[in-house]
Amino acid sequence: MIFPDRLDQSIARAGNPCVLGIDPHVALLPDEFAVAREPSAPRGERVAAITAFCAELVDLAAGRVPAVKPQSAFFELFGSDGALAWERVIARAHDAGLLVIGDVKRADIASTAAAYAQAHLGGDAHGDARIACDAITVSPFLGADALEPFLDTCRRSGGGVFVLLRTSNPGAVEIQAHGVPPLFERIAATIDALGRELLGACGLSSVGAVVGATNRKEIAGLRNLLPRTPFLMPGYGAQGASSADIAAAFLPGGRGALVNSSRGVAFAFRERSTTTHHWKDAACLALDRMIADVRAAAKAAS
Amino acid sequence: MIFPDRLDQSIARAGNPCVLGIDPHVALLPDEFAVAREPSAPRGERVAAITAFCAELVDLAAGRVPAVKPQSAFFELFGSDGALAWERVIARAHDAGLLVIGDVKRADIASTAAAYAQAHLGGDAHGDARIACDAITVSPFLGADALEPFLDTCRRSGGGVFVLLRTSNPGAVEIQAHGVPPLFERIAATIDALGRELLGACGLSSVGAVVGATNRKEIAGLRNLLPRTPFLMPGYGAQGASSADIAAAFLPGGRGALVNSSRGVAFAFRERSTTTHHWKDAACLALDRMIADVRAAAKAAS
Repeated sequence: MIFPDRLDQSIARAGNPCVLGIDPHVALLPDEFAVAREPSAPRGERVAAITAFCAELVDLAAGRVPAVKPQSAFFELFGSDGALAWERVIARAHDAGLLVIGDVKRADIASTAAAYAQAHLGGDAHGDARIACDAITVSPFLGADALEPFLDTCRRSGGGVFVLLRTSNPGAVEIQAHGVPPLFERIAATIDALGRELLGACGLSSVGAVVGATNRKEIAGLRNLLPRTPFLMPGYGAQGASSADIAAAFLPGGRGALVNSSRGVAFAFRERSTTTHHWKDAACLALDRMIADVRAAAKAAS
Repeated sequence: MIFPDRLDQSIARAGNPCVLGIDPHVALLPDEFAVAREPSAPRGERVAAITAFCAELVDLAAGRVPAVKPQSAFFELFGSDGALAWERVIARAHDAGLLVIGDVKRADIASTAAAYAQAHLGGDAHGDARIACDAITVSPFLGADALEPFLDTCRRSGGGVFVLLRTSNPGAVEIQAHGVPPLFERIAATIDALGRELLGACGLSSVGAVVGATNRKEIAGLRNLLPRTPFLMPGYGAQGASSADIAAAFLPGGRGALVNSSRGVAFAFRERSTTTHHWKDAACLALDRMIADVRAAAKAAS
């Protein structure tokens, strides 16, 4: 079963389209994982703490949401130990029945792009398919020919990509909306064209798009341009977007859009309004709130 | 000493601005490293062969060129074993007196971008500064605010970045030349503005640009827009560009541009015109030819 069908099924099973982002930012970790931020501690010990924290997040997500989205940067920070932790977190998520969207934002050309695709979607260089991501984020800045090797790998592996289209940060507009028509419309046309050749039985494509929930005014227009494209939407929660902002992203039946929250859940214990003290209770409460909120928005869009 | 000054000094010492790209593409490796392409071999053995091949390339580059440019994708393909090999190759290059430009093409926002910067330029999460790159390639697709965390790390670590501006592949033009004025001019203005705050004593900036040698018609215009920006130029050799194509990139004195060849050197033994048989002899000859050719172009520009 290819990625959009697995995704559609996982969303239906969970009853919501939420993604828990796994960003083990060492400065924000709960105190019980404080060794991770000790520069003087052996790298292996620091990474063991990070792995333990991520495992707790995976366990929190399991059965509640369809997918998790680990962020590569926080693992790369610890070199080969971090890479091993990345593999372990992915394997644990898969064992827990979660889809894994690797937030790697990779891009390159020709056989180098193919190597990135194989590294993160292929899995067989590792000898263990459990540590391949179900989908990854990729950048369109090098052009459609640089996306092709990723799509070739998707065809073989059944994986998916989410192409960066409109990211959630304020400065993105300078680049992504440059020109007339804005660059993002041109990229959307490429995503639509490439995606038509990788449709699942559910009618959605293996070629998705990253559309920041903070770009409220553009979301309905992008959904019009991209009727078959799964949207991955960062920016909910910590970055300020609400469920009202994302409503236009859903297809009939509340399908076709994934809403991500990373720090708003994992580090909810750092917020003043939190009435509970243990980080995991705070995260659990924040995730349950998000699920109820996003589910309502998806239903309203039906 | 910050990156542009180290670079300027290394170029002067080597007497040429050539970079040897380290792309351990398993399908192309010489037969003595064939275990690297055996899916059934243990991952550790495959990676040991890759590491040995890269070590030979580092030894070939040492004393001949100012820098090497390892390509992350081919290491990521092997997970944590690959990440360990990446660290070893970087350390070996540093021990050999070479600068290391990590071709990682990373991009993200805020503290995630900071984690990438720290991972690849900072080195201290690893407890070993030898395995930090001297500079890395980064993508501008997320906007200037997403580049800032990389520059913050450059300020602290003395490292540099090469921002993707005009890549060497045919499809890049759709995105990078979109709009009027073309997007790449807008990105060039950002690179110039950000770079002015990170100038070395040599007058060049820590903020460089990737300008494919295949974009011959645009190079002189970009050099005009970017008088203080080191150019990293892929596309020479295997991708078809010649020394005539790159001449306009050099500043007076033949300074300010680095010319990279990866496969044209490392895999020269695969070319029909090669009269020598051992891969390393073929690579050595190809590198010496490139150095003579590029040195002449840089001198002609003086």
